[in-house]
Formats: sequence, structure tokens, C-alpha cells
Amino acid sequence: MNTQPRVRIDPVYVERLILDMAKHGSDGGTGVSRTVYSPEWVEATRLYARWCEEAGLTARSDAVGNVWGKLEGSEGGGSIVSGSHIDSQTPGGRYDGILGALSALIALRALKEQFGTPRRTLECIAFCEEESSRFPSANFWGSRAITGGIHPSDPENTFAFSGETIASAMREVGLDPARIPEARRDDIDTFIELHIEQGPILEHADIPVAIVTGITGIRHYTINLRGTQNHAGAFPMDLRRDPMQGFAEIALGCVDTAHRWGRPAVSTVGRVIAKPNATAVIPEEVTFSLDARHPNPDLCRKLYEVHEAHMLEIANRRNLDIDWQVMIDHPACPSDPEVISTLEEAARVQGVPTMLMASGAGHDSQQMAKIAKIAMVFVRSKDGRSHTPAEYSSIPDIVAGIEVLAAALYKLAY
Amino acid sequence: MNTQPRVRIDPVYVERLILDMAKHGSDGGTGVSRTVYSPEWVEATRLYARWCEEAGLTARSDAVGNVWGKLEGSEGGGSIVSGSHIDSQTPGGRYDGILGALSALIALRALKEQFGTPRRTLECIAFCEEESSRFPSANFWGSRAITGGIHPSDPENTFAFSGETIASAMREVGLDPARIPEARRDDIDTFIELHIEQGPILEHADIPVAIVTGITGIRHYTINLRGTQNHAGAFPMDLRRDPMQGFAEIALGCVDTAHRWGRPAVSTVGRVIAKPNATAVIPEEVTFSLDARHPNPDLCRKLYEVHEAHMLEIANRRNLDIDWQVMIDHPACPSDPEVISTLEEAARVQGVPTMLMASGAGHDSQQMAKIAKIAMVFVRSKDGRSHTPAEYSSIPDIVAGIEVLAAALYKLAY
Repeated sequence: MNTQPRVRIDPVYVERLILDMAKHGSDGGTGVSRTVYSPEWVEATRLYARWCEEAGLTARSDAVGNVWGKLEGSEGGGSIVSGSHIDSQTPGGRYDGILGALSALIALRALKEQFGTPRRTLECIAFCEEESSRFPSANFWGSRAITGGIHPSDPENTFAFSGETIASAMREVGLDPARIPEARRDDIDTFIELHIEQGPILEHADIPVAIVTGITGIRHYTINLRGTQNHAGAFPMDLRRDPMQGFAEIALGCVDTAHRWGRPAVSTVGRVIAKPNATAVIPEEVTFSLDARHPNPDLCRKLYEVHEAHMLEIANRRNLDIDWQVMIDHPACPSDPEVISTLEEAARVQGVPTMLMASGAGHDSQQMAKIAKIAMVFVRSKDGRSHTPAEYSSIPDIVAGIEVLAAALYKLAY
Repeated sequence: MNTQPRVRIDPVYVERLILDMAKHGSDGGTGVSRTVYSPEWVEATRLYARWCEEAGLTARSDAVGNVWGKLEGSEGGGSIVSGSHIDSQTPGGRYDGILGALSALIALRALKEQFGTPRRTLECIAFCEEESSRFPSANFWGSRAITGGIHPSDPENTFAFSGETIASAMREVGLDPARIPEARRDDIDTFIELHIEQGPILEHADIPVAIVTGITGIRHYTINLRGTQNHAGAFPMDLRRDPMQGFAEIALGCVDTAHRWGRPAVSTVGRVIAKPNATAVIPEEVTFSLDARHPNPDLCRKLYEVHEAHMLEIANRRNLDIDWQVMIDHPACPSDPEVISTLEEAARVQGVPTMLMASGAGHDSQQMAKIAKIAMVFVRSKDGRSHTPAEYSSIPDIVAGIEVLAAALYKLAY
């Protein structure tokens, strides 16, 4: 049994890349607003490509604007790839997405410097888009292009919050939407994504790094509950059909179900619109959202069933009309068991304490799972914050995450 | 003991006045949109004055645009007055408000025709404004002018939904805001207001007319509940501070309290605004309304106390920040016991079945109570509807209500 050498990651270099990249789209504080195909995004992708070149990688931009850095291997076989997205929320912080793109670059640079040419080809990537923060239905634009998930009619039918199409935004930065199919890849063996946790589980456990066992299954419901609008003063309680009360009971019941099931089940009611939404009027209708998630496919289906039965029972008991639409329905995406084992072994080599955890958020990895074996590495987040300028991960934690990533890439490629 | 003669009310005349008046502000169907100081309102007030003259009354418009019809008595003493408001919701129907103004006119005309000159002076009135449907803080503009409740700075500080001041709207119809104090009256002995019920209690009891024992006390709270905004997928249930859940429990609890107390207590949550109101985000804050009402002053105070204790308990138990503002706080306004007795005796004389009921809605009468003895008469509403083109009361029910009103005015003035 060979003893794997430890990979050394330079914390000064890590911090410099994070801070320099955060200047592109900076709001002056710790916030970053860098939406796909914006001027800040163009600067950031050019910088990423330049850093790839400086690290001795071959840099290229593909047909949707994903930036790739390549370290050619001495043997054949599919590439071993790592990365994450370069766009941000508006505003997001310095870490969500970009940290995974930089970590892959840093890992490849360290491996090349410390161990020379790999057996298998290694690549890092900065996906052009993941957050849907400019185009609400862009929906993993970068990784969907790579996995062939963009329909030819999508570019002209994907609209920004401000109205323009993503096709027009692509043309403005010199990309031709008709060439999107050229971004397709079918030669990737393994994809590993490093990302900040976005929750407080590592912080509460006092552990810097997690190995992700899978990405949660998720459904978004939009539910409409209808009663009878009446005067809040003159209409007795016992004769009302009040959809606000039905909503309140459903919201309490569904969220309580996930709470009682315990981790990793989550259910959230984040959105509610009442009509006419007036103080002295019993509402006519209430429309609200339900977000339900579980990483185990069987339990996920069961969670949805329990929620739907609860909603119907309450609507029937309260004599309210109900219907719903499922707006998003992503199946649970388990990580590849062999890649998980590789990451666990890598953590042991590097001496990094880790725990196993499911991802409660969606990631590019669930798209990449259609063409490659996948797994993820999470780095501890302060207070579990993300999608905010307040998100923060320490340099020692980030270095520990990159060490686990780099050692796993070594194991797979050298 | 004198036997009081019955007053006869002509149903054909009643129906003609209702339908002719509804043309002013008609939306073509059964809807009426007639806001204070609008062109439709000018036409309607002129028509009301003309009908007063045709009925043999002396008509005049006062400094805020209330229209009065007067039947001078042969003796001195304060006037016996009846009426209601001529403005409507947008859209409202053919009955809310205007029916009380027309009923008073019809009653005075019948009394004059059938019994000649009264002992005490009788007056009918069409209040210029009650609905706050053009100026949201107008708040009983007509009856407040009569009772001295308009501050000199109010006309320039009362704004329409479209931005103009009520002072400017008054000038456009030839009224000088500086002269509002001239509308003040201190010579009214008794005020009786006929109005549609606005609830389904008479319909459920199969009774055409109610005598109103008092107007409910009412508080409108605006409550702000704050937690911690976090990611709906990555943040475990057991660590959340979710204000949507606190809201749901408070809404269920407060409304359930009023339901268990039984009639006439009512509590309603009609308005809710969540921030950021996104499907995949645990909200940062939820702002909502609570409308609570009881016509008994002691029980009203108790209801508010129970609601406030419940809100604090839930906020504390769920570790949420809470504060609230009381936006409206009208004390309960009991009817005058002697006027109630007069109305009950009038109903017996006319052979009209009645029941006693509290008003769950606010009315001009609660302003008039500051300067006169008051009581109200309610007429049955189909399905308890009001503030909608669908509101409807039958001509026989309306005639029964006017008969009770007219017989009471006879008792007080002849």
C-alpha cells in the first residue's frame, strides 16, 4: 500500500485570490454583485483565465462563457474536473460559488508544482451562471450547456428581471447563442465541487470541512386557498370561510412535520400573498409557497405525500377551495460512493477533520451528475450565512477544504 | 294611553329613489362608485336636495357638503335627525350609506303628508363622506364637521389615494375649507341612522329589521414579527427563528379566541406582508394586521388583553422580536336606552318583527353620539354582503325598516 504524500496549500495565495476576485462586482463592503454576462462578470472571467495561465494550465472559454483551465495528463481517459460558479447573488458575498472555482485552480496549481504532470487530465472550471440572479429561469446555465440540457429555443425564451433575453446578453459579450451545443462535454469522468456550506451544521459541530453524501431532493409548491371575502366587523366568526386561517394551519402543520422528522428534512413557507390584503376584510384568497426537501429519495417522496394530505385535510375541514402547482421538482442526487471514499481517504491523508452531510441546497454538481461521477466538499460558514455580504469562511477552513479536494484529485489523477 | 297611528310608506316611491340615485356613479351593473367631491357626488347631492324640496322640506348644503332637509316644528328644542352617508366604496352597491339618507327623507315626507307639522323640528341628512374610499384618512368627514371633530390643519393634511388634498377637492366643488367650523351643530337632540346590516345575522334569523344596541369597540393593530433570514434548504429546522411560523400561530390563536368567545366578539387577520417573501428563504420579518371588536366596553378591553398576551407569549416562546402599533382605536359606543325603547315601541306599532343586535362595523352614529342621543336601525342584507356591487336588500325589508324609523320619529316629534 502506497503512502500518499500530503499536498501543501499556500494560505497567502488563497487569500489573495479571494480578495482580488471580490473586487469585480464589489459593492465597496464585503458584498459582491456579479451577474452572468455583466461587465463585472467579463472582468472576473478574464482574470480567472489569466490566473489559470499563470498556474501553468491551458485556459479557454467555451460557447456559454464557462472558463476552463486544463492540466493535460500523460494517459488517456475522461478528465477529472473540479470547480463551481463565478456569478453571485445581488448582492451576495465573496465565497458562494467563486470559492469552488478558485479552489480548483489553486489545487491544480499546487499539484502541478508539487507533483508535476498527472497520469489523468485534470481540469478546473468557473461555471458562467448558477444563481438565476439576473435571469430567474437560467437555472444552471453553465452546467446545463456542458450536459446538453439547454434547448435550442431557451436562449430567446430566458428573460432577465429587466426584460432582455439571455441570447441578447450573450451577444453583447461576444458569444453566439447558436453555438451553445459546442459547450457539450462527454469526456468527463469525475466532477468534485467545493462550496461553502450555506448552513450552520459544521459550525455547531466545530468541524471545518464536510464531505457531501448527496444533494437534496426539492419541490417548490405554489398553493392557492380560496374562501369568501366578507366584512371583518359584521360577519360572525361561526359563519366565515377564512383562507388566512387555513393558510396559517397548513403553514404550521407542514413546517412542524419536517421539524419532527428531524435533520435533514426541511420544509419552509417563505412567501404569502393575501387578497385583498386589507385590515378590515376577511380575505378572499391566500396564495403561498411551500419548499420541501429531503436527500433520501424514498423519504423525500413520503414528505411530499404527508404535506399534500395535510393541505387537503385542512382545506376540506375548513370548507376552503384549494389547488396547487409544483413549480420546481428536482430529484435527490446522491454522491458517487467511490468518490465519497476517495474524499474520506484524502481527508485522512491531510489530517483534516470532516463529517458527512447532505446538501440542502442545489448545486451545479446535480447537473454534472448526468455525465460524470460527482461528490462535493463543504467548508464551514460563519453563522451558516450565504447569499448575503455577511457570508464568511476563514482562510484556515478554506485551506483545509482545498487540501481535501487536492488530495482527492491527486488520488484520482496521479 | 294614546294609540299611535301607523305610518304608511309607499314601496313604489322607495324603489324609484333607490334606483334613480344609483345612476349617479353607476358602473352600468349594480355597482356604484361615488366618492366624496367627485362629479357623481355633486350630481347626487343636488338630486337629494331637489327631492327634499319636492317633499316639502327646506333643503340646504352645509360647509363640508352635507345636505340637510328640514321640517320645522311648532315648538322649540333640539332637532330630531335621521340620515346616513351619500358616498360609496369603489365600487360599492346601491344601499350602503345612501339607503339611510333616502330613508330619512322618505320618512319625513310621509310624516308631513300624513300628520302635518310636527311639534319638534325634524331633519334628514346625507353626510358627505364616511367610507374613506377617496381619502383614506377622511374618517367620517361629514359627521366630524358637524361634531367639531375636524382640526383646522386636517384639510391640507388629508390626502387622496391619487395624492391631492381634501382641501383642494373641496375648492373644486365650490366649498371653502376655512369655513368647515360653520358646519358645527349643537342643537341636535336625537340622531337615528338606518343602514344595511353588512352581515348575515338577520338573514339567518329570518327577521327583516334589527334595532342596534350599540356600535362595536374596535382596534386595528399592525404587528411586526422579526426572526433571522436564512436559506430554506441548508438551515436545519431546529436552529431557525422563523417569523412566518410565529405569525401563523398568532393568527390561529387570536382568531380562535374570538370564535370561542362567540358572538358578538370578532377578530380578523386580513393583511400579511412577508420579507423578502421568497420561496426558498426563511423570512426575516412578517408584518400583519389584527382587527378585534366587541360592543361591550369591558369585554372589548379583555379581548385586547388576551390577544396581546397571546402575541407576546408566542414571540417569547419562539425567540422572535415583536412590536406593534395601534392604528385605530374606537371605543364601543352604546345606543341610548330611551331611543332603543322608542324604536322597539315603534316596531310594535308598525307590526314589524325585529331583533336586537350590536353593530360590528363603524358608522356616522358613533360621531353623532358626541352631541346627541343615538341609535340605529339595520335592514337585512342578502348573504350579509356589503362594500360590493352584490349587496342587496329587498324593497319589503327596506319599507319595514323605514316604517320603524318613521314611527320612532313620529313618537319623538309629534
